[in-house]
Amino acid sequence: MVSPILIAGKWRPAQSTESFHAQNPATGESLPNAYPISRWPDCDEALSAAADAAAVLRELPGEQLARFLNGYAARVEARLVEIVDMAHQETALPKSPRLATVELGRTTNQLRQAAAAAMDGSWSLPTIDTKLNIRSRHAALGPVFVLGPNNFPLAFNGVSGGDFAAAIAAGNPVIAKAHPSHPGTTRLLAEEALAAVSESELPAATVQLIYHLSREDGLRLVADKRIGATGFTGSRAAGLALKQAADRAGKPIYLEMSSLNPVVVLPGALRERADKIADEFADSALAAGGQFCTKPGLLLLVAGDETEGFLAKVRQRFVDRPTAPLLSADVGRSLSASLKNLITAGARVVAGGDVIQGAACKYANTLLRVDGAGFLADPQALQTEAFGNATLAVICRDLDEARKVIENLDGQLTGCIYSDTQGSDDQTYSILAPILRLRVGRLLNDKMPTGVAVSPAMNHGGPYPATGHPGFTAVGIPASMWRFSQLECYDNVRPDRLPAALGDRNPNGAVWRNIDGRWSQADVPPRA
Amino acid sequence: MVSPILIAGKWRPAQSTESFHAQNPATGESLPNAYPISRWPDCDEALSAAADAAAVLRELPGEQLARFLNGYAARVEARLVEIVDMAHQETALPKSPRLATVELGRTTNQLRQAAAAAMDGSWSLPTIDTKLNIRSRHAALGPVFVLGPNNFPLAFNGVSGGDFAAAIAAGNPVIAKAHPSHPGTTRLLAEEALAAVSESELPAATVQLIYHLSREDGLRLVADKRIGATGFTGSRAAGLALKQAADRAGKPIYLEMSSLNPVVVLPGALRERADKIADEFADSALAAGGQFCTKPGLLLLVAGDETEGFLAKVRQRFVDRPTAPLLSADVGRSLSASLKNLITAGARVVAGGDVIQGAACKYANTLLRVDGAGFLADPQALQTEAFGNATLAVICRDLDEARKVIENLDGQLTGCIYSDTQGSDDQTYSILAPILRLRVGRLLNDKMPTGVAVSPAMNHGGPYPATGHPGFTAVGIPASMWRFSQLECYDNVRPDRLPAALGDRNPNGAVWRNIDGRWSQADVPPRA
Repeated sequence: MVSPILIAGKWRPAQSTESFHAQNPATGESLPNAYPISRWPDCDEALSAAADAAAVLRELPGEQLARFLNGYAARVEARLVEIVDMAHQETALPKSPRLATVELGRTTNQLRQAAAAAMDGSWSLPTIDTKLNIRSRHAALGPVFVLGPNNFPLAFNGVSGGDFAAAIAAGNPVIAKAHPSHPGTTRLLAEEALAAVSESELPAATVQLIYHLSREDGLRLVADKRIGATGFTGSRAAGLALKQAADRAGKPIYLEMSSLNPVVVLPGALRERADKIADEFADSALAAGGQFCTKPGLLLLVAGDETEGFLAKVRQRFVDRPTAPLLSADVGRSLSASLKNLITAGARVVAGGDVIQGAACKYANTLLRVDGAGFLADPQALQTEAFGNATLAVICRDLDEARKVIENLDGQLTGCIYSDTQGSDDQTYSILAPILRLRVGRLLNDKMPTGVAVSPAMNHGGPYPATGHPGFTAVGIPASMWRFSQLECYDNVRPDRLPAALGDRNPNGAVWRNIDGRWSQADVPPRA
Repeated sequence: MVSPILIAGKWRPAQSTESFHAQNPATGESLPNAYPISRWPDCDEALSAAADAAAVLRELPGEQLARFLNGYAARVEARLVEIVDMAHQETALPKSPRLATVELGRTTNQLRQAAAAAMDGSWSLPTIDTKLNIRSRHAALGPVFVLGPNNFPLAFNGVSGGDFAAAIAAGNPVIAKAHPSHPGTTRLLAEEALAAVSESELPAATVQLIYHLSREDGLRLVADKRIGATGFTGSRAAGLALKQAADRAGKPIYLEMSSLNPVVVLPGALRERADKIADEFADSALAAGGQFCTKPGLLLLVAGDETEGFLAKVRQRFVDRPTAPLLSADVGRSLSASLKNLITAGARVVAGGDVIQGAACKYANTLLRVDGAGFLADPQALQTEAFGNATLAVICRDLDEARKVIENLDGQLTGCIYSDTQGSDDQTYSILAPILRLRVGRLLNDKMPTGVAVSPAMNHGGPYPATGHPGFTAVGIPASMWRFSQLECYDNVRPDRLPAALGDRNPNGAVWRNIDGRWSQADVPPRA
C-alpha cells in the first residue's frame, strides 16, 4: 500500500510506478509505510490546480489567510504527540525539548507571525504618490513550489515551515515536496493543513503535497509557466541544478544552500574567556549532530600563546560530548566524503574523524586543523562543507594572514567575531569585520550563529553561494514574504478598482503605508 | 585619434585595436570622433579599481554621496547646450523640448532624488528588533555594471541615468558601458561625473566608462567575482545572454528588455470619447518615433459598431502625423524584420509598412491589424516587439476572445484599460483587469503608458520577459535602489560597531526605521 498524495484537496494515488521508504536513523531500519515517487502527470495536475487556486487566493482578504494559518498552527499543536513521534522515528532527533518544544514551537510561531502579517498587510509595502495618483504594493505572484531540507522536519518542512508560511501569507498556494527522509511527518502535517484549508474556506488546492519526484521532473516543475516562484533549502548541488532550470525560464527561485559560518575568535577574547568560548563553540558546533545550516564549520584563530590551549579545550569538549545519530545514511556518506576532501587538501585530524560502528549512523565529533598558509594554498577544497558534527580550525600566523583567509571565503549565511571586552581586540576587529561583513548575511559579535531567531530584523540569507540572491532572507517576517511577491503598480486607476490597501482609507487602521514619502497608519489626507 | 576611456579616475587610451564611429541618424553620416572597442584588460582594470573604490564608498556617509549626485546634476545643467547638441547629433532626437527640457530635466531630477534618498537613508529599510538586539538594513553590494539603451541618451545613460543614480546612491561604484549609438554624449556626461567625483572627494574609480566591448567580454564582466550586480536596459536577445552569464555565476542582474504595453479600449469608452482616445493613442504610440520602452505596441479592441470607426480614426492620425528619424540604421533593420514577422504571422497593413526613402532612416507610421482568432493561432509570433513607430491592433470577436488574447500575453511593463465613465464597461473591466494585472508591472486606467514618472510608487518593471524579476523596478526612488543592495544583519553587535542607521539614536532625525514593527523617525526608546 503506497501512501496517496494530496492534489486539489484530495488524497489520491500517485501516478507512479516506484516508491520508497524512510529509514529510522537510530536503528537503520526501514519504516513500514511506502511513499510514491511521482511522475510528471502528478506535477501537471498539481500545477493546474494551483494556478486556479492562485487566482482566487490573491483576491482574498488577509484575514482569511490568517484564519487558515492560525487554524493550522492550532491543529499542529493539537496533534503534537503523533507528529513528534513520527518525526522522531524518521529523523532520530530527540523528542524533547528539540522536536516537541523547540522546533514545534518555532513552527507554530512562524505560522502565527505569518498570520499576523497577512492580517495587518504592512508586509506589502503599500506606497502612495497622492500628487501623481500612482500607487503600488507587493502582491502574490502565483503558485510557490517549496522543497524543504532534511534537518528540520517541522520548522522548514515544505508543508509547514518558513517558506510555506511566507508563501501562503503573501497569498500564494503552495506545492510542497516532502523531504524523502521524513515523508510520514510531512503527511501528518499536510493532513492538518488540508483540514485547516477547508475550515477557513480557502481553495482546496491552496496546499498540495508530492512526496518525491525525479530530478528531471523537479527541473521541469521550477521552470513551468504556471509556477510563480520556488523556495529551496538543501544541498548546493541540488540547489544549483534547480537554479539553472528556473533562471533559464525567468522564474524566481530562492535557495538556501550551504555555509561554513566562520567563527573568528580574537586573541584578547581567548585571554579573557577561553573556557566560556570553548563551551559556546562546542555547544553550537555539535548541536543536533552539527546538522544546522548555521553550524560553525570554520573556526578562525590567530597563532599565539592562548591559541593551542584554546584548541585543546575545544578538542576536549569534542571528545567528551555525546554524539548524535546523523539524519540519514546519506548524511553519513556525504560527511565522510567531505572529511576526506578536507584531509586530502591538507587538514589534519585533531579529534574524531571516524564513523562509530553501531545501528545508528554516527560519526565521532570531529575537529580538524590547518594553518593559514595551508588554507590559502587551496581555499576552495578547504571550504568543503562538512554537514554534520565536524569543524575545521584554521590557525593563522598573524592578522594579515587571517585577513587573507577571510578575503578568500565564499558567501556565507553568518560570520561571528569574538573579541575581548577591554578593547585590546578592537583594532583587529575594525580590520577584519568589514571584510567579513561583505561575505556574510548575518554578522554576530560574541554569540554563536546557531539559533536563527524568527525576527523582522533577521537575515537568514547571504551572498552566493550561501543563497542565490543577497537581498533576501528565508527567515523573518515580513522580509521572507517579499520573495514570493511581485511589485504591482496602479497608475490613475479609479478609486473603486484599487486593492483595499491602496485606497485613500486605511482599510484596517493598522496597515503601514508610505504616503508621499512618510510611513503612516492614517488615511490619505483629503486633497486641498 | 581614438577617444580615451575613463578608468580609475584617469582618461587613458583603451587597450584596443578596433574602434567605431557613431552615425548622425538625420543624415546617415558618420560622426568624426572614433571610440575604442575595449578588450578584457580594460575591463579587468576597471573591475579592480571599482572593487577598491567599493570598499571605501560603502562606508561613506550618505551626505557625501548626495554631494556628488547634486554636484553632478548641477554640472550637467551647466553644460546643457553642449550635451544637448551632441545628443541631438547622435540620436536625431529634437533638442527642445525633448532633450533640453524633458530628458535633461528628468536626468537631473533623478540624480537629485537619489541624492535626497542617500542623505535621508530611509531607502535602506533599517529594521531593529530591540528585544533580541538584532538589526538589519540594505547596504551597498559592490561595483555595478550599467548598460544603457539607445533610446534615452541622458535619462537612461549608463553614466547618468536611473540605474546609475540608484547604484551610486546605494553606495556602489559604477562601471558604465556607453551605448554605441551615442558615445560622444556619454563622454561629455562622464567628464562632468568625474569632475563631480573629484569635488565631492569620492574615490576616483566611483565612475568609470568603457565605450564598447566584445560580446564575450560583456558576458565575462557580468559574471566576474568583483562585480556586485548589473543593470541592463536594451533588447531581449542581448539581455537574455547577459542574464544567463550572470545567473550562472550567482550575480544579480536586473534587465529591462521588451514590452508590447497592451492598451485595451472597451466599447463604452469608444462610444463615449473615440476621438480623444485616438488622439491619446497616436500621441503615445508615435512619440519619439515609437522608440519608448512603454510604447503601446498592441491595441486590443472588441468588434462592434464603434470599432471600425475608431480604427479609421487611429489610421488617419498615423497617416497625418509626421514621422521621426529612427535612432539608428540598426533600429530600422530591426523594425523591418519585426514587421515582416508580424505580417508573415497574419497581420495586415492598415497604414504605413514601408521605409521612407531619404537621408534619415525613417519608417512610415505603421498600423497593422489581426483578428483575435488570428492572434490566438500564433500568439508568440504576433507578440514580436516592433521597436519604432508601429503598432498592432487586435480585433476580438467578443469579450471571451479578448480574455483569451490577454491570457496569452507574455510579461509586460504596462497594460492599460480605457473604459467609459458611465459604468457600461465596468463588468467587462472586472473580468479583464485581473487577468491583465498578473501580466504587467503597471496597470493604468484611461491613460497611455508612455511618460514613466519618477515616483516612489512607480513600477517600471514587470513579469518575465519584460524584466528578469517581477519584484523590482528600474524607475522610482527608493525602490530602484534595492536592486543594488544586499541585506545586512547585525546580531548582538556592540553599539559602537553598528552602522549609524542602526544605532539607538536616529542619526539625522530623518531616517525612517522599523523599530519592533512600527515605522518611526524617533530614537530607539530607552530599555525599561
